[in-house]
Amino acid sequence: MREAYQVELEQLAQHLAAMSAQVAEAMELATRALLEVDLGLAEQVISDDAKVDDARAECEEQAYALLALQAPVATDLRTVLAAIHAAESLERMGDLALHVAKAARRRHPDPVLPEAVRPYFTEMGGAAVKLARQVEQVIQTKDVAAAKDLEAADDQVDDIHRHLFTVLMDREWPHGVAAAVDVTLLGRFYERYADHAVSVAKRMIFVVTGRMPGYGSDEDLTV
Amino acid sequence: MREAYQVELEQLAQHLAAMSAQVAEAMELATRALLEVDLGLAEQVISDDAKVDDARAECEEQAYALLALQAPVATDLRTVLAAIHAAESLERMGDLALHVAKAARRRHPDPVLPEAVRPYFTEMGGAAVKLARQVEQVIQTKDVAAAKDLEAADDQVDDIHRHLFTVLMDREWPHGVAAAVDVTLLGRFYERYADHAVSVAKRMIFVVTGRMPGYGSDEDLTV
Repeated sequence: MREAYQVELEQLAQHLAAMSAQVAEAMELATRALLEVDLGLAEQVISDDAKVDDARAECEEQAYALLALQAPVATDLRTVLAAIHAAESLERMGDLALHVAKAARRRHPDPVLPEAVRPYFTEMGGAAVKLARQVEQVIQTKDVAAAKDLEAADDQVDDIHRHLFTVLMDREWPHGVAAAVDVTLLGRFYERYADHAVSVAKRMIFVVTGRMPGYGSDEDLTV
Repeated sequence: MREAYQVELEQLAQHLAAMSAQVAEAMELATRALLEVDLGLAEQVISDDAKVDDARAECEEQAYALLALQAPVATDLRTVLAAIHAAESLERMGDLALHVAKAARRRHPDPVLPEAVRPYFTEMGGAAVKLARQVEQVIQTKDVAAAKDLEAADDQVDDIHRHLFTVLMDREWPHGVAAAVDVTLLGRFYERYADHAVSVAKRMIFVVTGRMPGYGSDEDLTV
């Protein structure tokens, strides 16, 4: 049973790696749609989201089959459940990319972002996508040391997010309330995406190594 | 095994009912802290959040024990996994109540909400808490018909949330950008809380009946 379990677990991990690549791509395109005011890219992210939902359903089915057929216990059981949680977070990351794309579409042909805050979103988008790609890498290489960068990338998103708020709250903000509302929500979407990415990455380290990394915040890591 | 499974599943359901009551209480107090500008209530919600996190960890441990000892298959397996997902959503609802309480604390002794939007938050808060209480009720009474109100309460939150945005986006909004940012995020917290509540309620209907309700949005229901 142990060998069959390992083979099936590896397949499940590969499935989650593919899902990570999907949601990284979604956020990359959504960010470009936002920054380049590109309706076509926004539409693509919006229509592709169903594929992320399907991938999550497939991951869950695979995990259920593994539980039902192998009835794993102890660490093996926790590993499969970590994979189920990771799939849920990845789907949520896809939803957040979708929200960014929808914001870009809603204001088109106007840009959502005032010129002054564009650099913040360029940086947050880059860091968020990098986090999602690192998940894929952790699975492919099983190089857990590489995952140490995760915290740094997440801290970067948090720092930019905080800075964005000081810009918004500044009495001199000249772009009006509607733009402030859009920027507030978009900032939140990136911040949540990055949080989920870190949580997924830590879970996947657990899936590939059987040990949960202890560094940093673990609010989402009760698996 | 089947009887032992049923007993343990019922215990797990009771645990989730207690958790629903906790997060209903948290959102009720957080909303009062917000509306009544009450620092003591805000502090209480903030310090009580650790109990919700503990309760979630206990629910997961109970679910893991059930999986490891009973090795359920088919519907039984899906039921336990639905309970695990429900616990995750309930913890998230607790986090959202915590965010509301933190917003109240951050601006104290100033009110976060301009007078004009207080009625929206009174209503959204009431509907959100009602949703969480319905989850508890569904588990206690196993009266699935009562759960039909869920959709109505969630629609109510969505309607108020949408209306709140039209108020914010109005060119006449006189309360400044900082207040708009606070109101935007708070509105989002209530909307997310209600979404999670509906998803938990549907999952708990599945846990107590073995059938997933099909009505309404099922984006979160890939269990």
